[in-house]
Amino acid sequence: MRTFINVQDIGPLEKAMAEAFEIKNDRYKFQHLGKNKTLMMIFFNNSLRTRLSTQKAAMNLGMNVIVLDVNAGAWKLETERGVIMDGDKSEHLLEAIPVMGCYCDIIGVRSFAGLTDREYDYAETVLHQFIKYSGRPVFAMETATVHPLQAFADLITIKEWWRVEGGGLMENSHPVEGILPPPSTLHLQPKPKVVLTWAPHCRALPQAVPNSFAQWMQADKDIDLVITHPEGYELDPQFVAGARVEYDQKKAFEGADFIYAKNWSNPGVTNPADYGKITCNDRSWTVDAEHMSWTNNGKFMHCLPVRRNLIVTDDVIESPNSLVIPEAANREISCSVVLKRMLEAL
Amino acid sequence: MRTFINVQDIGPLEKAMAEAFEIKNDRYKFQHLGKNKTLMMIFFNNSLRTRLSTQKAAMNLGMNVIVLDVNAGAWKLETERGVIMDGDKSEHLLEAIPVMGCYCDIIGVRSFAGLTDREYDYAETVLHQFIKYSGRPVFAMETATVHPLQAFADLITIKEWWRVEGGGLMENSHPVEGILPPPSTLHLQPKPKVVLTWAPHCRALPQAVPNSFAQWMQADKDIDLVITHPEGYELDPQFVAGARVEYDQKKAFEGADFIYAKNWSNPGVTNPADYGKITCNDRSWTVDAEHMSWTNNGKFMHCLPVRRNLIVTDDVIESPNSLVIPEAANREISCSVVLKRMLEAL
Amino acid sequence: MRTFINVQDIGPLEKAMAEAFEIKNDRYKFQHLGKNKTLMMIFFNNSLRTRLSTQKAAMNLGMNVIVLDVNAGAWKLETERGVIMDGDKSEHLLEAIPVMGCYCDIIGVRSFAGLTDREYDYAETVLHQFIKYSGRPVFAMETATVHPLQAFADLITIKEWWRVEGGGLMENSHPVEGILPPPSTLHLQPKPKVVLTWAPHCRALPQAVPNSFAQWMQADKDIDLVITHPEGYELDPQFVAGARVEYDQKKAFEGADFIYAKNWSNPGVTNPADYGKITCNDRSWTVDAEHMSWTNNGKFMHCLPVRRNLIVTDDVIESPNSLVIPEAANREISCSVVLKRMLEAL
Repeated sequence: MRTFINVQDIGPLEKAMAEAFEIKNDRYKFQHLGKNKTLMMIFFNNSLRTRLSTQKAAMNLGMNVIVLDVNAGAWKLETERGVIMDGDKSEHLLEAIPVMGCYCDIIGVRSFAGLTDREYDYAETVLHQFIKYSGRPVFAMETATVHPLQAFADLITIKEWWRVEGGGLMENSHPVEGILPPPSTLHLQPKPKVVLTWAPHCRALPQAVPNSFAQWMQADKDIDLVITHPEGYELDPQFVAGARVEYDQKKAFEGADFIYAKNWSNPGVTNPADYGKITCNDRSWTVDAEHMSWTNNGKFMHCLPVRRNLIVTDDVIESPNSLVIPEAANREISCSVVLKRMLEAL
Repeated sequence: MRTFINVQDIGPLEKAMAEAFEIKNDRYKFQHLGKNKTLMMIFFNNSLRTRLSTQKAAMNLGMNVIVLDVNAGAWKLETERGVIMDGDKSEHLLEAIPVMGCYCDIIGVRSFAGLTDREYDYAETVLHQFIKYSGRPVFAMETATVHPLQAFADLITIKEWWRVEGGGLMENSHPVEGILPPPSTLHLQPKPKVVLTWAPHCRALPQAVPNSFAQWMQADKDIDLVITHPEGYELDPQFVAGARVEYDQKKAFEGADFIYAKNWSNPGVTNPADYGKITCNDRSWTVDAEHMSWTNNGKFMHCLPVRRNLIVTDDVIESPNSLVIPEAANREISCSVVLKRMLEAL
Repeated sequence: MRTFINVQDIGPLEKAMAEAFEIKNDRYKFQHLGKNKTLMMIFFNNSLRTRLSTQKAAMNLGMNVIVLDVNAGAWKLETERGVIMDGDKSEHLLEAIPVMGCYCDIIGVRSFAGLTDREYDYAETVLHQFIKYSGRPVFAMETATVHPLQAFADLITIKEWWRVEGGGLMENSHPVEGILPPPSTLHLQPKPKVVLTWAPHCRALPQAVPNSFAQWMQADKDIDLVITHPEGYELDPQFVAGARVEYDQKKAFEGADFIYAKNWSNPGVTNPADYGKITCNDRSWTVDAEHMSWTNNGKFMHCLPVRRNLIVTDDVIESPNSLVIPEAANREISCSVVLKRMLEAL
């Protein structure tokens, strides 16, 4: 595997899940693969979960890790040719990126959407510069439009909690430490209903998480995905193509096994001028106990960080049906699979 | 060991000292304990010695280390329930702390006193949140009211320099590299007189270091502790209970074997309104050669960083009787013992 | 080896080159040397290449690495004795540096020239404080007047690209991965003409890179060095003694095999009042295709980062004759040799 951006990059999902479960049962099993291999993590934006879980996954695999925090304001790279560089940009990407590639074997990049120029964001300019010029395998640690490590972890979490026999949800224990259904039976289970729901927020957020979540859920033929959001918040067709959209949040929630809440700013699909803006503030979309009562005793998921009582109420996120912590713990697992694949292909 | 905050957490001091000397003689002896174990160091405040010595100790033990610098201003955690989080706090501690616990095996926390709210500081709010919600063993890397890694290193230093036979101080060599009295004889020696003395400073400093120093010295029945400070600077009774306080600095110094200088702001014990304030600026408390002449050729100690000619004069800190560097070197040893204990109990 | 500042520190260059090639062919060969050894990298100034390549080299050698970013503004060390430290300096170097030495085995220091006080800069004050007080081997990671890791990497690059038989340049492949001339034949080749040329820049830059480059090229008797720069930009005699200076850039370039471009501010050799100033802005010195046409199909080198179309035009730096990326890659190799030598001498 040379890049990890979209769900297609990971190949057949059943095989990826099997590897995830294998690693979760023994997360140091592939430690030999990383010997004398170096991961470089490049952050153009802040990170807590991604930084920690990716570093942990790399160390589990025996890799060395170099973390580079690029203050987006301080380190401006020139990207054009022909410019006389006598301004504030002290280095050209055509030198900076190949040099970074010299000192490592695999590169992870975090680079958020600016939310002002849709075309630039959706072209994934920074990510593709690293792919093109670094000479190394590159994976997205949340970029302008995707967060595949999160979506992969979400899928692992759903598989863990969806009971194999007869279909239905596991109840009483958090399977954080390696109690998992045998991978070979995963495809036999009935489909869980998974609902991706928009929720209100006070700041304009990127679409990376919902884009990837929709893409990964759609790619799994054993999942029944429904997306619900206010009108005008339609996600980009390249990620949701074929997914059922239900504008009535209550109808969407009915019978749901998993509720995946997330805010995103206007994707500008319906009206390009709205891109990156907050065009809805309707707090009736906040997921509370009444919302959850519409579901089939559904589990609650969120990628974190989450603003309580805006996205979700205290009682819902603290309830036994909340999976937010096991979901975060699975970030270590999804990243381990990605790094293992990249190490094997070096 | 699940927490390391107070001297009681380390158990019998003779056993802890024996382990410290064992590690100092071979600091890589327990390297197998840390294999595939991860220490997460979380800094809400700056650090030099603690950061470096803790990282070194963890690496000596074969651990992986993740360092997280939390700019206290930038990462505000919501701590209340029921709040609609549409302000400047983007994450609730009830999610943030368990997630950090997901990616590591042991957590170290640095979180200084704010020095404005005595009750909040002395409740050790941040530290106890990590203990309660992280699911991991937690140790203090200087918190609001304690600095036990420093006090433990101080005790190691005093034991090293107090000559076994007959009692008295070692003279001619810095025993930095493993020349130590045999632990079995430690309890036979006469008691050294150890003086904790307040000294002036230009900024308001926490009481964490003197609190822990007093607590650890009091816990060692082979040490004769005297505390001296201006009236009104009484330390919290939970840390100094039973210690002799002598307001006359000269009387306190007479016959002392070890002088431990430190500034602290007003602890607010006598007058709660004075908490965290500088209520004395008397520079006659600065430890100079005349002060040291009152002692029994005593050794000078300070936890560093130290402001020269305010806390102590150049000639005293540079004299052969100054132990400040070997004392700092022992931070690696005290932390190694703590991590070893926590690893053994995982 | 206890210090690495000047070319003399590395000993005979042929032996150093042989070690460099040995390490490039198997960069993990000496991994046993670094077991349980810790490198502390101390940055008073920003770094990309040096930080990454040094960390990589240390990890190749099996070392632990601690990185300390000292914001030059935030951590002011008192350096004088007798000062009452009640101002903005919270620690004295006489404590800070020995303490840092306690927690590591080897120290790397980056500390740039201030460019206002020539005497202070050329005394290498900060570097020599670390050498004197840390008790550890110390190497320069670019200091006020030298950048020997860069010059060493430059020399490795020139040796790689200079064809052994008959003399002349290698053409068709970047020998980044270990295809090197046998070291034993290196001294048999004819001398390449290497030109260090000043080039214009919009900010005042230190002389560290040209100083070290001149020193290292002069030390290699198989290299024919010519230096060209505007009048008044003469480099310090201690670094260039004996080198040919040609003020006519075109004459200097004629027949050159390697062009090494670099800006530096006025060294203040001719006129001390000019020290650190930009006294020439002549853009005719920018290295473009016409400049390169004067050479013997010469290779282009620069230490990076480089401001394009100010130092060098896009077409020259992107041409097949540009060695800037292999040159940066060799930073890992030069640093590996230095750390190997220091580890062997511990």
